[in-house]
Amino acid sequence: MSDLLVRLREGLPEDAVLTDPDVVGAYSHDMASFCEAGVPAAVVMPRTVEQVQHVMRTATELRVPVVPQGARTGLSGAANASEGCVVLSLVRMDRILEINPVDRVAVVEPGVVNAALSRAVNEHGLYYPPDPSSWEECTIGGNIGTASGGLCCVKYGVTAEYVLGLDVVLADGRLFSTGRRTAKGVAGYDLTRLFVGSEGSLGIVVKATLALKPEPPKQLALAAEFPSAAAACDAVCRIMESGHVPSLLELMDRTTLRAVNALTHMGLPESTEALLLAAFDTPDPGADLAAVGELCAAAGASEVVPAEDHAESELLLQARRKALVALEAVTGTTMIDDVCVPRSRLADLLAGTAAIAEKHDLTIGVCAHAGDGNTHPTVCFDPNDEDESRRARESFDEIMGLGLELGGTITGEHGVGVLKKEWLARELGPVGVELQRGIKQVFDPLGLLNPGKLF
Amino acid sequence: MSDLLVRLREGLPEDAVLTDPDVVGAYSHDMASFCEAGVPAAVVMPRTVEQVQHVMRTATELRVPVVPQGARTGLSGAANASEGCVVLSLVRMDRILEINPVDRVAVVEPGVVNAALSRAVNEHGLYYPPDPSSWEECTIGGNIGTASGGLCCVKYGVTAEYVLGLDVVLADGRLFSTGRRTAKGVAGYDLTRLFVGSEGSLGIVVKATLALKPEPPKQLALAAEFPSAAAACDAVCRIMESGHVPSLLELMDRTTLRAVNALTHMGLPESTEALLLAAFDTPDPGADLAAVGELCAAAGASEVVPAEDHAESELLLQARRKALVALEAVTGTTMIDDVCVPRSRLADLLAGTAAIAEKHDLTIGVCAHAGDGNTHPTVCFDPNDEDESRRARESFDEIMGLGLELGGTITGEHGVGVLKKEWLARELGPVGVELQRGIKQVFDPLGLLNPGKLF
Repeated sequence: MSDLLVRLREGLPEDAVLTDPDVVGAYSHDMASFCEAGVPAAVVMPRTVEQVQHVMRTATELRVPVVPQGARTGLSGAANASEGCVVLSLVRMDRILEINPVDRVAVVEPGVVNAALSRAVNEHGLYYPPDPSSWEECTIGGNIGTASGGLCCVKYGVTAEYVLGLDVVLADGRLFSTGRRTAKGVAGYDLTRLFVGSEGSLGIVVKATLALKPEPPKQLALAAEFPSAAAACDAVCRIMESGHVPSLLELMDRTTLRAVNALTHMGLPESTEALLLAAFDTPDPGADLAAVGELCAAAGASEVVPAEDHAESELLLQARRKALVALEAVTGTTMIDDVCVPRSRLADLLAGTAAIAEKHDLTIGVCAHAGDGNTHPTVCFDPNDEDESRRARESFDEIMGLGLELGGTITGEHGVGVLKKEWLARELGPVGVELQRGIKQVFDPLGLLNPGKLF
Repeated sequence: MSDLLVRLREGLPEDAVLTDPDVVGAYSHDMASFCEAGVPAAVVMPRTVEQVQHVMRTATELRVPVVPQGARTGLSGAANASEGCVVLSLVRMDRILEINPVDRVAVVEPGVVNAALSRAVNEHGLYYPPDPSSWEECTIGGNIGTASGGLCCVKYGVTAEYVLGLDVVLADGRLFSTGRRTAKGVAGYDLTRLFVGSEGSLGIVVKATLALKPEPPKQLALAAEFPSAAAACDAVCRIMESGHVPSLLELMDRTTLRAVNALTHMGLPESTEALLLAAFDTPDPGADLAAVGELCAAAGASEVVPAEDHAESELLLQARRKALVALEAVTGTTMIDDVCVPRSRLADLLAGTAAIAEKHDLTIGVCAHAGDGNTHPTVCFDPNDEDESRRARESFDEIMGLGLELGGTITGEHGVGVLKKEWLARELGPVGVELQRGIKQVFDPLGLLNPGKLF
């Protein structure tokens, strides 16, 4: 047994150190395509803060890299193992420690599953908004690491806006608290926010204090069909410009609609070029939907269908939630992009993406958190076709380039990981990269935490 | 003329370099009591980014400290000059560069006055929520530097939540952009947020992209009188626990009410121990106020008076806005504390503050952003009375100690500056301070930016 395994086992229970090659192999990567992954030396699954500290102290002493992991539902390779690393899985630290309706906070361990937290706070009349597509599996720790978004963001914002305070085990094993449980606080630099989206490269989050909202009324949705993506984007701009605050504003293009129908037989309209879904969780959602329906019609919608009730609304949203899986079923594999542009440039991004698809002779379905300008152009390709794979990768990159040209970002909510690290440098520029590397150096001078990610 | 002045003038217009001792003296400090301030070598007032870069390049070359300033309405000494420094006033960079209702953003220079921005965006049906008491004078750059709050935070959050992207001139004069203009974005560490509340110690903000909200309906308020501070705090907890989202939830104690009456002759009830003001900007504020009024009554309110209309609501809020000025008039000088606790501990903080006032035989009026648990215990004292001044300082510190004991923070919205730097170390602990200093070192290795603040 290697020195590393001997030392790890000194501070961890028997069942917390996994070395079986099949098991270890399963923990070597997340759900991203085209991302390198090495073979870990071991997977450790601590249950306590002290055990995490032991892992980090051991790693520092032996200079072994550590890759922290949640549920590995990420889409950028941020949780991929590096060769010979220790994979530090936080999934067994899954206790909800407190839910406080007066302070409107929850205190949780990092392995709590997003949906489990959502349901638990609902029972107190509270709401934890961030709802990534993988919410039934992904963990709060992973959500913090990747700064996850979801369907709710157009009204409720992203994970970052709900992280008040963190307990973090640093690279050298020291435990450090940052942030607060109060509604406000400005004591020093905001290190808490620095950890959100840092992809495990600055420290290991072992406890989080999260802000909660009162549970809103159930949302009511409508679907609007458009003869062109441009018209649907125009409707999005009109809706946002007129001061509406939808709880959801999603777009699916024709490719996506057909893919969802093929998978689910939902009978979505296949002749329409773009479907817009809008929802409101306001006291009078019917009135809001009526106003938004008129704006859709003015933008050229051929059909506007408000849901009769919450159940019908939920069906519409199910169609949206199936989009990425449905597109994956088209050719077997996809690369899901995550470009976010100012919403006034959404139409340009969609037109440009269509041109890129045509140029490379590829199927690229687009679904989008349209109200945020956050699109997921999803490149369908056959991984066994070398030329198609190459064209897929090229088109994926061209879409990011287009996003930057339009004043956007290469990632709205999926993160950088391995997949986009070259593009991160383009977005940040040399001064930005220099400063970001300087910060990494402050927290992790030996470069042991999730090496090879982000930069 | 000193070498410094010669070099500064090489890249600045004649009227942008001020050295008259009276003028320079006026720019040596902000509005905090008990904070040391040195005499600046010069005050510079650039109008362009290039001029700011010239100032920073000159300062770096000559190793002269630079203290950035907005309108100097701060309450922590964060804008106080250090001896022989260059005061870099950004007030002349006061252009609103863009207001975009589709993207819901404004792009501004740092010297734009908060109220000027608020009014300008209102004309587009938009709303820039952060509203510090000094909003008619304070600048957006100052708000970003100190992470300002205000009355709206209980519903709309603080300045930090509205800063999407920044252009920053670094200590060495390089221009650096961080963040985005999109609704979402997770490309790399969140350096944008790091600048918010950094009190000019990491770089000079020369442009900001701010998120805007749709303008809400005008708010409607009620006032509730309570026989004790504890009962008023109980009402606050009931209101928040029951899921209400007031646009304002403020508390004034008897001392504050009397001081406001003395100053304004408003005729506020002086026999009550605590007055709670609640407001809603919802579609049906009357219904919300009725529900909240019942919760106040259940918590022991002796009187609940809903405003008849928006004008009457505005009058009630005027009383609150006059609180700090009124308390200052009691003895001539005040120290305004800014302790924020979890709202479930608000009653404990008020009881403890009353005990501290009694122990030191001082008048301490408390007004609070009660919905946030953010209190401003305001110590009234005669600066010419040495013993009273000492007791004022001691009680000020004891209130911070109490706030930390109750799980709170030493500053909810006023910042650290000179006033609280010893207390910042207590709140952050040694590891926190080490990491914060590490970050300072990354951005400002020569330690020229606002030295002696924060740490």
